[in-house]
Amino acid sequence: TAAMNKFRNLFDSTRNRIKKQDMKKIFHSIKLGIALVVVSLLYLLNPLYKQVGDNAMWAIMTVIVVFEFYAGATLSKGLNRGLGTIFGGGLGCFAGSFAQDVGGDACASIIGVSVLVFGGIATYLRLIPSIKKKYDYGVMISILTFNLVVVSGMREEKIMALARERLSTIGMGFAVCIFINLLIFPAWASDELHHSTVQSFHNLANSIEGCMEDYFSSADDKKKNKSDASFSSCKATLNTKSKEESLANFAKWEPWHGKFGLNYPWNRYLQIGEVLRELAATVLSIKGCLQSPRQPTSGMREAIKEACEMGGSSIAWALKELGEGIKNMKRCQIEGVIVPKLKLVRQEMSGLITPSKLGVIENGDGLAMASFVFLIMEIL
Amino acid sequence: TAAMNKFRNLFDSTRNRIKKQDMKKIFHSIKLGIALVVVSLLYLLNPLYKQVGDNAMWAIMTVIVVFEFYAGATLSKGLNRGLGTIFGGGLGCFAGSFAQDVGGDACASIIGVSVLVFGGIATYLRLIPSIKKKYDYGVMISILTFNLVVVSGMREEKIMALARERLSTIGMGFAVCIFINLLIFPAWASDELHHSTVQSFHNLANSIEGCMEDYFSSADDKKKNKSDASFSSCKATLNTKSKEESLANFAKWEPWHGKFGLNYPWNRYLQIGEVLRELAATVLSIKGCLQSPRQPTSGMREAIKEACEMGGSSIAWALKELGEGIKNMKRCQIEGVIVPKLKLVRQEMSGLITPSKLGVIENGDGLAMASFVFLIMEIL
Repeated sequence: TAAMNKFRNLFDSTRNRIKKQDMKKIFHSIKLGIALVVVSLLYLLNPLYKQVGDNAMWAIMTVIVVFEFYAGATLSKGLNRGLGTIFGGGLGCFAGSFAQDVGGDACASIIGVSVLVFGGIATYLRLIPSIKKKYDYGVMISILTFNLVVVSGMREEKIMALARERLSTIGMGFAVCIFINLLIFPAWASDELHHSTVQSFHNLANSIEGCMEDYFSSADDKKKNKSDASFSSCKATLNTKSKEESLANFAKWEPWHGKFGLNYPWNRYLQIGEVLRELAATVLSIKGCLQSPRQPTSGMREAIKEACEMGGSSIAWALKELGEGIKNMKRCQIEGVIVPKLKLVRQEMSGLITPSKLGVIENGDGLAMASFVFLIMEIL
Repeated sequence: TAAMNKFRNLFDSTRNRIKKQDMKKIFHSIKLGIALVVVSLLYLLNPLYKQVGDNAMWAIMTVIVVFEFYAGATLSKGLNRGLGTIFGGGLGCFAGSFAQDVGGDACASIIGVSVLVFGGIATYLRLIPSIKKKYDYGVMISILTFNLVVVSGMREEKIMALARERLSTIGMGFAVCIFINLLIFPAWASDELHHSTVQSFHNLANSIEGCMEDYFSSADDKKKNKSDASFSSCKATLNTKSKEESLANFAKWEPWHGKFGLNYPWNRYLQIGEVLRELAATVLSIKGCLQSPRQPTSGMREAIKEACEMGGSSIAWALKELGEGIKNMKRCQIEGVIVPKLKLVRQEMSGLITPSKLGVIENGDGLAMASFVFLIMEIL
């Protein structure tokens, strides 16, 4: 019943978490709706419309495109959009006025060539991974603005005025986004990253405990269910890389808030994630042992039971301890408490079960754990 | 020197592959440039400009936003944009004309409420994973179009004409994209997915071979380099999930081409990828054994050397064989040749090295391999 209680707790906390995520989604939807209404006022109210005219369209577009779920994503997209517009618009004005100075028939062909060259180069830049990661959207917007400015330069007289008006409406849209997204129930990518890292620690700890229970429980029907659950959470940990990278990317844009300072070391989270994924890979390979058709006799199992359970539970304990440490952002007593304890356990285990079956895997596990603990030591 | 040759071959093929990817990127950039010039002609040529007017802007925007690297991505984005525009525009017209029928002061507030409600609901839809995966862009565009149509309905008389003109210019932009992206040196997501799956097979085979060599080679300096290389390729295989999912998503949109039929089973590729990742996790956990401070004596090593090398090389052989089979899209003789051979090798190995150290890991490996082979059997 202790195990059942634990599982029910896990289930409850998961359900609460889902509910919380759902509430956040609903908040986000309402926030976007409000931002749209605010920005639509530019059209709906006569005095405002007289000021900006049809350029109000650009404010609406900006809100829809820039308003993202996470505060950091909104900031980075908005800044990208602003800078991309300025850069592309500036170059477009330059190219357009150059073409008009040359004038005549050559004008159209100069514009065509400049569109081809700028579009080609900027698109190539977008495909370079390091630029794609951070400035993809900005480069795209600069292609767009360049093109619109340079071709409409042929038709419009007041090209500079047009560019200025568009930029100012984009700025209005961005201001509305920032105001509503960051000040009303903001969803911080940093919180999410922090939480998901802590969650990974607990997932792994639970998987290891689940493995131990499965391996030493006699009933075959119980076996299947639980190890499947623990392995699926393990796999979920394995596949966190791309999600964590984008979260860290957004988190870097986010200003000082809550418990996070300005230069918070987000890259460390990625490193921890990397080590956790390695550990998850090791835990996953225990699956091979659990599902192997050739199982040791129950006598052999009994012989190694105590040592393995001790090892597994102390690893799980250490993981949970580390997870809590990160959660509360306290330096936990790694050098003093956790490392010596793990070392002690490992020594005892290697004394007990050198030639037995599970020993080796458990060992690999302890090793990954040790390397992991060393990294954590460097981090905290 | 045989090993060196193999490595040089690997290096050369990698370099060639990078070059090929680079050429594709350059082609893509040039293609986008050409598409932009073609669509800019709507502005640059007087007769065309008289037809479409300032709405030519929408064609340019469509090209820039829709023109993606992979053919499937372009198709899916273009169709999403088209359908989103039609849906959002239709609803916008409906809401706009309803508001105008009511008229007076209520008009503006009806528009405001409809913007809030539609924006909120559509944004919530965008956050649901299954919709986000396939129709994210379409829903976003429908919010955008709805808003623009409904608010400009206040100002413009001929709202239907405006919507029709915009839609037709978006259609022109899309047609240019499709024509240039799909007919001139297309980059198929399907080819990429196919290639990356085959590559994963070979990467894993090479890592396993690298592990074997490392474990049984005596020189310590050689050790470090090679196992690091093989493990990094293993880790690359582990982190392919999100890339493969998006490629499969695009591949599903792609029409019949080359060797792929219309209803090609792309989900199978995802399943294969899943199994390969599990195998990669197992191989990665061998790292623990290689880096462990407690190594077996060289005598013990010699005792298991033959069996392990046989096991490792036959697994690597099987993986390469399967990779080639997928590459050439031929059903390889799994039931007839590969499975019996692996079973034989496993039997021999378990006869030789039950209580030894590496045996267990190798065994887990063989097991993952067996489950893997079974899945492949079901696939081909």
